[in-house]
Amino acid sequence: MSSASCIFCKIIKGEIPSFKLIETPLSFAFLDIQPLSEGHILVIPKHHGAKLHNIPDENLADILPVIKKLTKVLKLDENDTPEGTGYNVLQNNGRIAHQEVDHVHFHLIPKVDPKTGLGVGWPAQATDFDKLGKLHKELIEKLEKL
Amino acid sequence: MSSASCIFCKIIKGEIPSFKLIETPLSFAFLDIQPLSEGHILVIPKHHGAKLHNIPDENLADILPVIKKLTKVLKLDENDTPEGTGYNVLQNNGRIAHQEVDHVHFHLIPKVDPKTGLGVGWPAQATDFDKLGKLHKELIEKLEKL
Repeated sequence: MSSASCIFCKIIKGEIPSFKLIETPLSFAFLDIQPLSEGHILVIPKHHGAKLHNIPDENLADILPVIKKLTKVLKLDENDTPEGTGYNVLQNNGRIAHQEVDHVHFHLIPKVDPKTGLGVGWPAQATDFDKLGKLHKELIEKLEKL
Repeated sequence: MSSASCIFCKIIKGEIPSFKLIETPLSFAFLDIQPLSEGHILVIPKHHGAKLHNIPDENLADILPVIKKLTKVLKLDENDTPEGTGYNVLQNNGRIAHQEVDHVHFHLIPKVDPKTGLGVGWPAQATDFDKLGKLHKELIEKLEKL
């Protein structure tokens, strides 16, 4: 399934050029042309859908193994310690969550210095076991009905 | 494979309690007890590994369908427009990239207002086609040797 007006569907079809790296029957990977750091890559499902929950499971299952392969050619697997080479994998859904193109895309973003790559803001809330316990109960009930 | 000293391996084994939501043969999902927003969930592979490139493909393939299921019980699939309900999926590798526990974990973080949820910093670089072209050539050569 593709969308005629979607820029990423056009890239998959080759109607718009891209720096293609990997193509599988279900996924397509290419360089981001406005990178946050050198080696910033996008991995997208060939199935058109705006948000993660719109994508079939078989397409979703194909994405992370493709990202893993890309970490190797970017040499992100070298210097394999907590303090060594870093990277972020990010997928945004909706404008409020910083999504700009409405076709699901996973960012693989190398993090080699503090100034480039993804900026992460982490407004963690204090642990509230009562609130967590209530939410947990609600979610378990909904999971049983899925 | 598990690690005796890893807090997430202990959670998987039930040696440390958690607000467990989904368990599959390959993955485990539970509430983050220091959430960035209500409904912040962690999804982890049962295979112990610090960074994404350390995880077997079969474990990686199981993660995103689990996250998709969780978006539904969190009702993140309702109000399904670009301006509607948002969420981020994030996986950090290495201290410099904001990883704190050295067992791969995917964050599913609802984004319903600007003050809670993930903060995203986006220091995009200007498009440099020469630089991108050279990098693309290098990566293609490395992919052919994988």
